[in-house]
Amino acid sequence: MASTAPLHPVARQALLAALDEGWADPARLYRSGRQARMLLDAARETVAEVLGARPDEISFTGSGTQAVQLGMLGALKGNRRRGAHLVHSAVEHSSVLHTAELHLAQGGEVSTAPADRLGRVDPAGYELRQDTALAVLQTANHEVGTLQPVEETAARCAAAGVPLLVDAAQSAGRLPVPPGWSLLTASAHKWGGPAGVGVLAVRKGVRYSSPLPADERENGRVPGYVDVPAIVAAAASLRAVRAEAETANARLHALVERIRARVPQLVPEVEVVGDPARRLPHLVTFSCLYVDGEVLLTELDRAGFAVSSGSSCTSSTLTPSHVLAAMGVLTEGNVRVSLPYGASEAEVDRFLDVLPGLVAGIRAPLGLDLPPVAPMRQTLVIDALGKLCPLPVIELAKHLTDVTPGGTIAVLADDEAARHDIPAWCSMRSQEYVGEAPAADYGADRGTAYLVKRIS
Amino acid sequence: MASTAPLHPVARQALLAALDEGWADPARLYRSGRQARMLLDAARETVAEVLGARPDEISFTGSGTQAVQLGMLGALKGNRRRGAHLVHSAVEHSSVLHTAELHLAQGGEVSTAPADRLGRVDPAGYELRQDTALAVLQTANHEVGTLQPVEETAARCAAAGVPLLVDAAQSAGRLPVPPGWSLLTASAHKWGGPAGVGVLAVRKGVRYSSPLPADERENGRVPGYVDVPAIVAAAASLRAVRAEAETANARLHALVERIRARVPQLVPEVEVVGDPARRLPHLVTFSCLYVDGEVLLTELDRAGFAVSSGSSCTSSTLTPSHVLAAMGVLTEGNVRVSLPYGASEAEVDRFLDVLPGLVAGIRAPLGLDLPPVAPMRQTLVIDALGKLCPLPVIELAKHLTDVTPGGTIAVLADDEAARHDIPAWCSMRSQEYVGEAPAADYGADRGTAYLVKRIS
Repeated sequence: MASTAPLHPVARQALLAALDEGWADPARLYRSGRQARMLLDAARETVAEVLGARPDEISFTGSGTQAVQLGMLGALKGNRRRGAHLVHSAVEHSSVLHTAELHLAQGGEVSTAPADRLGRVDPAGYELRQDTALAVLQTANHEVGTLQPVEETAARCAAAGVPLLVDAAQSAGRLPVPPGWSLLTASAHKWGGPAGVGVLAVRKGVRYSSPLPADERENGRVPGYVDVPAIVAAAASLRAVRAEAETANARLHALVERIRARVPQLVPEVEVVGDPARRLPHLVTFSCLYVDGEVLLTELDRAGFAVSSGSSCTSSTLTPSHVLAAMGVLTEGNVRVSLPYGASEAEVDRFLDVLPGLVAGIRAPLGLDLPPVAPMRQTLVIDALGKLCPLPVIELAKHLTDVTPGGTIAVLADDEAARHDIPAWCSMRSQEYVGEAPAADYGADRGTAYLVKRIS
Repeated sequence: MASTAPLHPVARQALLAALDEGWADPARLYRSGRQARMLLDAARETVAEVLGARPDEISFTGSGTQAVQLGMLGALKGNRRRGAHLVHSAVEHSSVLHTAELHLAQGGEVSTAPADRLGRVDPAGYELRQDTALAVLQTANHEVGTLQPVEETAARCAAAGVPLLVDAAQSAGRLPVPPGWSLLTASAHKWGGPAGVGVLAVRKGVRYSSPLPADERENGRVPGYVDVPAIVAAAASLRAVRAEAETANARLHALVERIRARVPQLVPEVEVVGDPARRLPHLVTFSCLYVDGEVLLTELDRAGFAVSSGSSCTSSTLTPSHVLAAMGVLTEGNVRVSLPYGASEAEVDRFLDVLPGLVAGIRAPLGLDLPPVAPMRQTLVIDALGKLCPLPVIELAKHLTDVTPGGTIAVLADDEAARHDIPAWCSMRSQEYVGEAPAADYGADRGTAYLVKRIS
């Protein structure tokens, strides 16, 4: 239940064979070099066929992240005569956001297409201008699994003459690649291939200018020695996974449906996020109120379950997930379950068995079930200054019933995450989020007052 | 006898084990992620120890080329307050030259330290200025095997306050890394590790600013998913190769010495290039006059020998090697033999057995052994316009004895390679190269006249 998976057995077999047959430099003219070149060409044809591209449109990179970086920077450079405007959705992978930051730092302009509460991007939210050099959209969201409207966005981009980079990292191998892309990126370890292989496809006729020093390998797009054995393994795995996809998807889809339906029945105060219908077959994310995601992750790990929490690429930082923030859902207490290809119903059932007890155990010391000790009143100020989320929300939840229905609570907080979490909590708990006020109005010297009206 | 080698048995074993134990994302907090992180940390410690660095100075890249590109661009960006002047030797790997070209195109300044006829760089040839942001030098040349004066150059750079990037791709694992580097680059497949792993080490305190979009992995220097199994295999191979190095080097050094001594005895009109003493143990390069390097390579391949020709990274182009050109030696008819770790005396002897016949077979149709048909005269004009090298040199050699000793031959040629080849041929054959004259002086409408005085 992780962000990657062990090597697919077919990939392992292909890797071992290619270490013997394809170890040589494919740029060399002698026999072993020509043999490596033939294996590389065959792998390129396989990957092209499965992804719906021509072999000469495919370049192999060292990772999905490198594919995204080179794809974006190369397309922006190749289309700089149009202008320096880049547009991407608010829920793209961090590799897209970081590349956009570099573009901005180098004098470019960036705008963002918003996503709704289900994580779905609106194609009309893409600002497509005369000077737009590139648009970027994922096939599916990496944190909540929501499928994105690639075809509609591609049609709008085509009408505006804007090239569209489609980040297929989450779906390649599992689902067919939607048509309409100008550039396509993917990552082999996501489809059971080895680490160290990404794919960048650039449609014939799409302007591209490498941002890196010159190198003739991989269509002049990816400098450096070509890792033929890993690429051969990646191609073998992609073909195998694609062939098994229909069966595997149906099975995983049902298992995820089981988690989506059961978790809210088994665990109180939980929100399953992401689109319930238009979604990846294998991925499900939910947020448990009043729970620290990393603590829950650690408890689940002890119980034998490898899950992720929060933003999928910032596990060593405490930054809240930009995806959940853009969706306007709770950014904490978040658990992402990514079922491996071989996941069984028994494993899922065991997960559903242990989860409620673990969550209850984490919540127990918070005293959430204690009745309110103070008499009900019309207004209340909660001082959560200096407290990090989720503490401000926990305080709010504990004291909601301290005010009468129709009464107002002002939560004073200086942790920026409160700006997302408090409205999200209100939305989920059907309370009314009134808005922000200066904390100074409540006598505080810093922070913000978040105003909540108790409805029920 | 190639630019790379099959995976070292130890690397293969480590790779298989790490595919089972280290497949997970080392950035993850769950058990398999922590296990991958431990393997990655251990590999980093091994590589650091063998290369003489601290573990936190080491970042793993996707190739040696990527290490060079990131090392150079990151150091140039980090030291941009000093200035934008870059200096490297004329015989660096093409990845260094291409990165320098990008730096130049982006408004930087580049100067080149020359190499002598043996391919050795003079430390005093490095122009070190107040605004010099980076100097680059290889430990050993990749085409001719000459060892470079890294320590002396490092001392000069240190005195001038200029950081020095040392490209150790050719020697890492085989020879100890010379001290004094600020940045160090290497490539695992050169030491029997897998493709897809390079190393960039940046000394603590050296200014470095990543040229790529932000990414927290590998010290913020190399974006993208980390290929733990390949890195584990690379580290295992490096340790094994380093442990065997003393024995292997002595054996390979003697085999190369045998080739260096015997080839000129067995094949007429051949020049063994590179430093005969201060050299890599396993690499030897020679040039056969009047022979097309690719033709000889093909013949040797048929006989079961995998060798390279000309520039090591431009096999699909016909550009003459910039290394041989900088050394002022013949750029054509070039054969590079890189002995694998397991090379045997019997293989070398078989190579020496077949080589003379193959060279003679290629030369036979040229009629070089025919006596001159014209009577000797004082001056001769050879019209080689429109003929590609090595034809102008072949014509010169055929007709040298058409003039009396002390007489002059003017070779009219429009292939740029003649500018290197004719002086090189003169130097080798102890004839006097007089210089260039406008071809118009000899009634031609294009090209250059290369004047040669027959000495003997």
